[in-house]
Amino acid sequence: MERHFEVELQAIRDRLLAMGGLAETMINKAIKALVDRDESLVQAVLAHEEEMDLLCIEIDDRSFTQMALMQPMASDLRFLVASIKINSDLERIGDQAVSIALRAKSLITQPQLKPLIDIPRMASLVQEMVRNSLDAFVRQDPELARRVIDGDDAVDNLRDQVFRELLTYMMGDTSTIPRALDLILISRNLERIADHATNIAEDVIYIVKGEDVRERGDKELRKGLRLPLPQHG
Amino acid sequence: MERHFEVELQAIRDRLLAMGGLAETMINKAIKALVDRDESLVQAVLAHEEEMDLLCIEIDDRSFTQMALMQPMASDLRFLVASIKINSDLERIGDQAVSIALRAKSLITQPQLKPLIDIPRMASLVQEMVRNSLDAFVRQDPELARRVIDGDDAVDNLRDQVFRELLTYMMGDTSTIPRALDLILISRNLERIADHATNIAEDVIYIVKGEDVRERGDKELRKGLRLPLPQHG
Repeated sequence: MERHFEVELQAIRDRLLAMGGLAETMINKAIKALVDRDESLVQAVLAHEEEMDLLCIEIDDRSFTQMALMQPMASDLRFLVASIKINSDLERIGDQAVSIALRAKSLITQPQLKPLIDIPRMASLVQEMVRNSLDAFVRQDPELARRVIDGDDAVDNLRDQVFRELLTYMMGDTSTIPRALDLILISRNLERIADHATNIAEDVIYIVKGEDVRERGDKELRKGLRLPLPQHG
Repeated sequence: MERHFEVELQAIRDRLLAMGGLAETMINKAIKALVDRDESLVQAVLAHEEEMDLLCIEIDDRSFTQMALMQPMASDLRFLVASIKINSDLERIGDQAVSIALRAKSLITQPQLKPLIDIPRMASLVQEMVRNSLDAFVRQDPELARRVIDGDDAVDNLRDQVFRELLTYMMGDTSTIPRALDLILISRNLERIADHATNIAEDVIYIVKGEDVRERGDKELRKGLRLPLPQHG
């Protein structure tokens, strides 16, 4: 039983890594669809979404099953709770990639507004954040997780730069407004992906640094249980 | 012990309701700051954020402690996992309200672009979605949860209407562009709040409809455990 539990935890870890890889691929293809003006890549992103949904359901089920069946120690329980939360962040990263792909689909039917430099740079940064947040999770590395959280500032700076530049285009020529707005919204999709990677990194810190409540349980907490809670006492 | 556990579950439920109420208040004040051009309400939203952070930490701790100490039945475990997820969605709703308040702070130093009608309407809808998603959680009401999910379309329609109208302003007079962009981004903040309420509603459906894996455990799952998993076999 114990050995099976270890195997299951490893399987959940592997699935989350696979999902992280898929999320990166989706971001990459969505941005490449935009930059190379390639509609087939839009379709590829949409196809990946189904794959991601299946992985997401599988990870939720497996994590919950282990919680319910194995009565895990607090550290394993913390890992399983984090898996469910990280799973949900990865799924939402996939949603953002789909949103970028759909905006790209509309943009590539129109003349190109300008050569894209900052948006692909922003995309590389957020892909790296997603990758590192998952690596930090697998290696239980709070230092790497902290670097992910710090990386968010660079993404925010690029977002502001994209905004200022596109604002200049819009003010100078109103015919650019609809396309500039789509590009601004793509930069916001990337910002949201960075937010999700930050959430994952915060969960990693929580797993690694968390107090073992179960061990604490027999001493302080069970003692506390005898007292009525203030709000219900 | 059993009775204490029930009291704790009720306390978690109460805290989540309090947090939902706080989230609603924050949305309300942020939009009122914008409509009434009242900076003191911006400050009120920022003050609520700290309150929300404290509640969020408390709910996480209490939910996790119950999971670790009480080895709950699958249905209670599902409730606790959902509490942790809902908690995180409510916190992010608070973040969006703060973001709206900060944009309002900037907008109210400039001349008003137009009387606001659709944005306050959108705000009422998303507040209602947040309230109903929490009610559905407390009453374990999947029908109400489904109504929340359906309500997302009305929010998306208003978001598109806001976008089209502000686009017309921008095309007609470039001096309106910065203010119009802020209003568009506020409508996106509201859209994200609606997305979080939808996530909460989905979690409610998951709690109520979920299979009891622990009960299933003794029959099918433990049998399954004897077989090596395909990916590790």
